[in-house]
Amino acid sequence: MNARIKIALDAMGGDHGPSVVIPAAALSLVRHPDTEFLIFGDRKVIEPLLENHSVLARHSRVIHSEAAIAMDAKPSQALRQGRRKSSMWMALEAAKNGEADAVVSAGNTGALMAMSMFCLQTIANIERPAIAGIWPTIASESIVIDIGANVGADAKRLVKNAGMGAALARALFHVERPSVGLLNIGVEEVKGLDDIKLAGEALKKPDLPIHYHGFVEGDDLGKGIVDVVVTEGFTGNIALKAAEGTAKQIAVYLRAAMTRSLLAKIGAFFAQGAFRALKDKMDPRHANGGIFLGLQGIVIKSHGGADAIGFASAIDLGYDMAKSDLVSTIAKDIEHFQAALQQAPQLKDTDVVT
Amino acid sequence: MNARIKIALDAMGGDHGPSVVIPAAALSLVRHPDTEFLIFGDRKVIEPLLENHSVLARHSRVIHSEAAIAMDAKPSQALRQGRRKSSMWMALEAAKNGEADAVVSAGNTGALMAMSMFCLQTIANIERPAIAGIWPTIASESIVIDIGANVGADAKRLVKNAGMGAALARALFHVERPSVGLLNIGVEEVKGLDDIKLAGEALKKPDLPIHYHGFVEGDDLGKGIVDVVVTEGFTGNIALKAAEGTAKQIAVYLRAAMTRSLLAKIGAFFAQGAFRALKDKMDPRHANGGIFLGLQGIVIKSHGGADAIGFASAIDLGYDMAKSDLVSTIAKDIEHFQAALQQAPQLKDTDVVT
Repeated sequence: MNARIKIALDAMGGDHGPSVVIPAAALSLVRHPDTEFLIFGDRKVIEPLLENHSVLARHSRVIHSEAAIAMDAKPSQALRQGRRKSSMWMALEAAKNGEADAVVSAGNTGALMAMSMFCLQTIANIERPAIAGIWPTIASESIVIDIGANVGADAKRLVKNAGMGAALARALFHVERPSVGLLNIGVEEVKGLDDIKLAGEALKKPDLPIHYHGFVEGDDLGKGIVDVVVTEGFTGNIALKAAEGTAKQIAVYLRAAMTRSLLAKIGAFFAQGAFRALKDKMDPRHANGGIFLGLQGIVIKSHGGADAIGFASAIDLGYDMAKSDLVSTIAKDIEHFQAALQQAPQLKDTDVVT
Repeated sequence: MNARIKIALDAMGGDHGPSVVIPAAALSLVRHPDTEFLIFGDRKVIEPLLENHSVLARHSRVIHSEAAIAMDAKPSQALRQGRRKSSMWMALEAAKNGEADAVVSAGNTGALMAMSMFCLQTIANIERPAIAGIWPTIASESIVIDIGANVGADAKRLVKNAGMGAALARALFHVERPSVGLLNIGVEEVKGLDDIKLAGEALKKPDLPIHYHGFVEGDDLGKGIVDVVVTEGFTGNIALKAAEGTAKQIAVYLRAAMTRSLLAKIGAFFAQGAFRALKDKMDPRHANGGIFLGLQGIVIKSHGGADAIGFASAIDLGYDMAKSDLVSTIAKDIEHFQAALQQAPQLKDTDVVT
């Protein structure tokens, strides 16, 4: 793909709106000079900000929108009030019409999900999109899916999450048969989680384009023993936030330890370069961006509270995904998984709850 | 309570059996010299180990058992094969007969749960025990319940978990009205988790002996904003292990950062005291021990892989709980919560699935 990558930005989303989105786009453009931006939002706010970013201004087109979706709007309300005229909707519509290769928004998750489904539609055999996240690991990075789109999942949905996550891993990590694990609690306590066990049976089928690893536990997430960890949105969200909270907690401990005595302070002085590198490695802003999977288009959700560095990571993710032609890969992969599901007699009777 | 605290140890449980349990008991005895141990297990293995611990030997009685429960035995199998004659069962029976104030085992969780219920019985209005854990926080410590006993929970069970967790907080943290939060995902995505919302409604009642805080998210766990975080066993277990995994991951990063350059090594040399303190603070062995709540007796489950320091923490926990007369506190508290449940009309129709 030699053409420029076109990214639609919902400039009015997130806690900070254009004051974060514009400098973030400028940052991302330095890393990927072949990007072009469609910036949707309030022209009166955006244009003065662009004056400080001349390179970005040359690679952007501002499209004025009258409305912005409130961060606390309910999805139904957002759809009613923001359809056609909100920055979020218009950004998604640009992707639908082929004017943009990816959409990035820090707006209200529920509204973005509802509008994405309404505007872009899901791919065949996917009833609702899932959200995938990139989890930094000791080995490198894993994909965790779902980190918050759908609360609860039956075996079929878990299998489809596995399929979408594997397609994403193939696109981002360039592995032919990504390894896939199902998030579960210790084997001895498995009773009751029949859906996870059933999903595991279906994922064992040798004709799927994955290496099925089996169950993984919460403490395996950080080890990076698989490319893709599959779960449902409630557990995935809690696990992600528990890990983020722990990282912050340890940063507090570390700061306290390094200032508790003169010797510690001397040590911290000598090791300041090392601490900077560590801080950078642990910076959650580098892993910002939830990827909506299962849509006929690429949508990246940034943390609402992200700053420019964080939002730029989300744009980078959108860029990478657009480069990799992910949507058609997923659509093709999901057919394999759909076939595997149809061969699993125990999964035939119940249907996915949507 | 001036009498000595009597603790029954299942010496055959865990990955290492008596070779960990005996030195652990010796360690804990130094901290709590008013402890007396009943040690259940293979006399031929235990007695030679006791020869190296003369103080412990004077404060212990070894009771020979013929059988040990395998770490991979199914609960039903354990009950069938290990009833009466296994070290696990005999330790529980000592608590039942009033010979022991608490039981500590590193054995098979499912078997320990099944045997505990069978031998000790649950308290009134509790159908199945939950497992509580002590979560180290920036503020100090919180209780998280349930960390793995019951997969899934309806609103009633969540309310009862709150009641048991609050009683434990009152006993361990000495707060009159412990603050209680329900673990949930971001408010905007709450749809579908009706049980958590219903439990929240019930916990708001002003006559309960708690301060109900509302929902908390995964990243609030490490902050310690509430005394008790309430969830069900699947999510609680994943969150706990995700946090443990993250702590290990950051320890790896930290070690790598401190050896990457000469300056970093010099810094690490000066700060070695600080790093030792940090390592100690982050040591998961200090927080070892799942507390089975809702039984007519005190049962502590240690990690199966715990070493002597870890198992000693679990014994300490049993000691603290025995000192605090927890079982009768819980039984009394649960009556309040039961009354609150009966006043909640929306919770009347469905009953707890056992």
